[in-house]
Amino acid sequence: MSWVPIAAESPFSLANIPFGIISTDADSTCRPAIAIGDHALDLKAFSNGGGFSQSPEIEKHAAVFSRSTLNEFAALGRPFHRLTRTYLLDILRSDTQYPALLRDNPKLKTVAMVAFSDLRNHMPMAVGDYTDFYASTNHAYNVGVLFRGPSNALQPNYKHLPVAYHGRASSVVVSGTSIRRPWGQTLRDPKAEIKEPILGPCQKMDIELEMGMFLCRPNDLGNPVHVDKAEEHIFGYVLMNDWSARDLQAWEYVPLGPFTSKNMGTSISPWVVLADAAIPRTHGLTNENTLLPYLKESSKETVLDVTLEVDLIAKSGSRKTIVRTNSNNILWSWPQMIAHHTISGCNLQPGDLFGSGTISGLEPGSEGSLLEQTQGGKVPIKFGKEERIFLNDGDTVVMRGWAGKDGARIGFGEVSGTIEAPLPSPY
Amino acid sequence: MSWVPIAAESPFSLANIPFGIISTDADSTCRPAIAIGDHALDLKAFSNGGGFSQSPEIEKHAAVFSRSTLNEFAALGRPFHRLTRTYLLDILRSDTQYPALLRDNPKLKTVAMVAFSDLRNHMPMAVGDYTDFYASTNHAYNVGVLFRGPSNALQPNYKHLPVAYHGRASSVVVSGTSIRRPWGQTLRDPKAEIKEPILGPCQKMDIELEMGMFLCRPNDLGNPVHVDKAEEHIFGYVLMNDWSARDLQAWEYVPLGPFTSKNMGTSISPWVVLADAAIPRTHGLTNENTLLPYLKESSKETVLDVTLEVDLIAKSGSRKTIVRTNSNNILWSWPQMIAHHTISGCNLQPGDLFGSGTISGLEPGSEGSLLEQTQGGKVPIKFGKEERIFLNDGDTVVMRGWAGKDGARIGFGEVSGTIEAPLPSPY
Repeated sequence: MSWVPIAAESPFSLANIPFGIISTDADSTCRPAIAIGDHALDLKAFSNGGGFSQSPEIEKHAAVFSRSTLNEFAALGRPFHRLTRTYLLDILRSDTQYPALLRDNPKLKTVAMVAFSDLRNHMPMAVGDYTDFYASTNHAYNVGVLFRGPSNALQPNYKHLPVAYHGRASSVVVSGTSIRRPWGQTLRDPKAEIKEPILGPCQKMDIELEMGMFLCRPNDLGNPVHVDKAEEHIFGYVLMNDWSARDLQAWEYVPLGPFTSKNMGTSISPWVVLADAAIPRTHGLTNENTLLPYLKESSKETVLDVTLEVDLIAKSGSRKTIVRTNSNNILWSWPQMIAHHTISGCNLQPGDLFGSGTISGLEPGSEGSLLEQTQGGKVPIKFGKEERIFLNDGDTVVMRGWAGKDGARIGFGEVSGTIEAPLPSPY
Repeated sequence: MSWVPIAAESPFSLANIPFGIISTDADSTCRPAIAIGDHALDLKAFSNGGGFSQSPEIEKHAAVFSRSTLNEFAALGRPFHRLTRTYLLDILRSDTQYPALLRDNPKLKTVAMVAFSDLRNHMPMAVGDYTDFYASTNHAYNVGVLFRGPSNALQPNYKHLPVAYHGRASSVVVSGTSIRRPWGQTLRDPKAEIKEPILGPCQKMDIELEMGMFLCRPNDLGNPVHVDKAEEHIFGYVLMNDWSARDLQAWEYVPLGPFTSKNMGTSISPWVVLADAAIPRTHGLTNENTLLPYLKESSKETVLDVTLEVDLIAKSGSRKTIVRTNSNNILWSWPQMIAHHTISGCNLQPGDLFGSGTISGLEPGSEGSLLEQTQGGKVPIKFGKEERIFLNDGDTVVMRGWAGKDGARIGFGEVSGTIEAPLPSPY
């Protein structure tokens, strides 16, 4: 039990304690905070007010709580995150060992406890490199059928290695940032023999429901990370909407993969759920292949068990939950992705971001993209007076995710974004 | 004429003045410098010694000369680079306006003028995002034939847009850094019907001769850069060796592009030749398509005219110049690449790096990769007692590039790298 009021369905229970970056009207500098109920605890204010005085080890590194991103905190490593999280858990408990530090310190509470309604969220991390995987077999199959037909839907490599591509790091934005509909090249007539592109605003603006993972521990160039040691490299998790311009993608993606169709923006939820918050684990999708040794995990249940939902909200106010699924619809765990990413010796760094790839279940309504939900544009989604194949200008997409039961939820809150009208002309 | 002795064939004539980052035994901090002849002028020492005292505008921003990368200098924009370069040009001229500042100041000269043999080069920029294009038609065709056969060699989009993919930024390293042969998945028998991968060290380690370009000016998310204004976003150029593991690449690259086959390292030359150093321009390869308006340049000669060479040096000492070509073997200019990269609204940032893609001419010996030179492994390269299809452990590859005539060369110096033996086991 916490002395902070926490609603039963709050994603930010005592079991969670996620980290983020906030600013307020009173203090416009970006600074670290944790989320609890519908409040943030401002860690800069808490630290300056002597909040960490009972832990010399945390106090020694307290400068990380006045940084504008979590990168330096992340780089201190899992043992330090565990120490800090455990300490803060105690501070927030009704029966805290140190009531004078915050619970019974009205002056510090006024400064350091900030209602969500009084703060702005910012990017939690400065993203180094962003790698997007393709790890949900159902999605890869569904999209493969649409792009290449059922016989070539899954490539021969798909179940042998976690397929991935390098994404665009600079355009990863925090929840709430609008996404402007991009201009780009599309085919005038995709079925014509002579392929002739036109320039125009994207006509097939889509979402991709993904989980994201931030790295905390680096590995040196030339030195792979062992799959069973990869957990120590994980800082935490976020939800991700990897906005996708399907008409641009279809024309540009051969042979080197998606480029302008994805680089206009990728949205993430603002609160990083630490790897130390014990999100329940389960097994992922079945892989009938014998894995090569570097991908074999000692443990069988290594995939996160997170309930995921997506709402589509029209400008008119009409709203529908269009996706209900679970993050366990995945062929590869985060440690397997780390092992594969580094098998060549690639160096990962604190602040690097991995995306899971679009997460889709098998049942209707569990597919994590509109492309799949509408069967490639054939079956519109209907809600209120609205009908959608792809996104309209003014549409807002909200993704939610949580694990655990009411009262002890480990949730991500939301990642939301609204599609802005395109520029009248690209210049 | 300069008071600094400069050999006629030096890449670093008065026409050049490239910027880099150095350290020395006397001062191990990384700091900016320029190259002139076979010396570097340490800009931190020069600045601290009052070197910029005759320019209040440069003096105002002198803090950028004590940074460990050129990013802050780059971010000050083209007019500031021009001002600084022109000022330094004057300082280095025999008839400098300010002889007392350096030419006739033996004390400062001793500190600030560092022989190349007494310094180490470091990464000139902290790379934000790295994007690799595929802009040399000859290379795209040659490789396309090997991977997909002649009828599918060039995809329908190839001559309509500058094909590119996001590369790995963290593993971009400076010339002189060894590259460890990567482990990875390859096919036991690529022709077998059932595709079965094995894990092992790469057997087809290759080079890619590329030009690199660093950005200096940012554009906001959602706001494309006009092709005719893109020059102002260019900080300067480097040579690049985009090491490639061809056997890993062949197995992994469908459908999302190269990943572990490229992320073990990309080497760049240490001295950034500023966009303001007037590298001669010429026209690129012919494109019979009518370009969409956002790719149409007002000027016709927008492609850099740089002579390029690659030497292969065996551990035995045997050495051969295996590539002779020119950077004009390219379908798209840097401004066209910037315009395409941002047409979707993608935000570029100071320190972002573009690669041209492998540059290959049409004549034998002008192809920028071993894959092409050996016709996919069929014709070995012979030199001394050596014979190569792909690189052996201990092989060193040196790339050189220059424009202009002897005495006024605008050169890049070298980018070199040696292949280290793979780890005995990947863990």
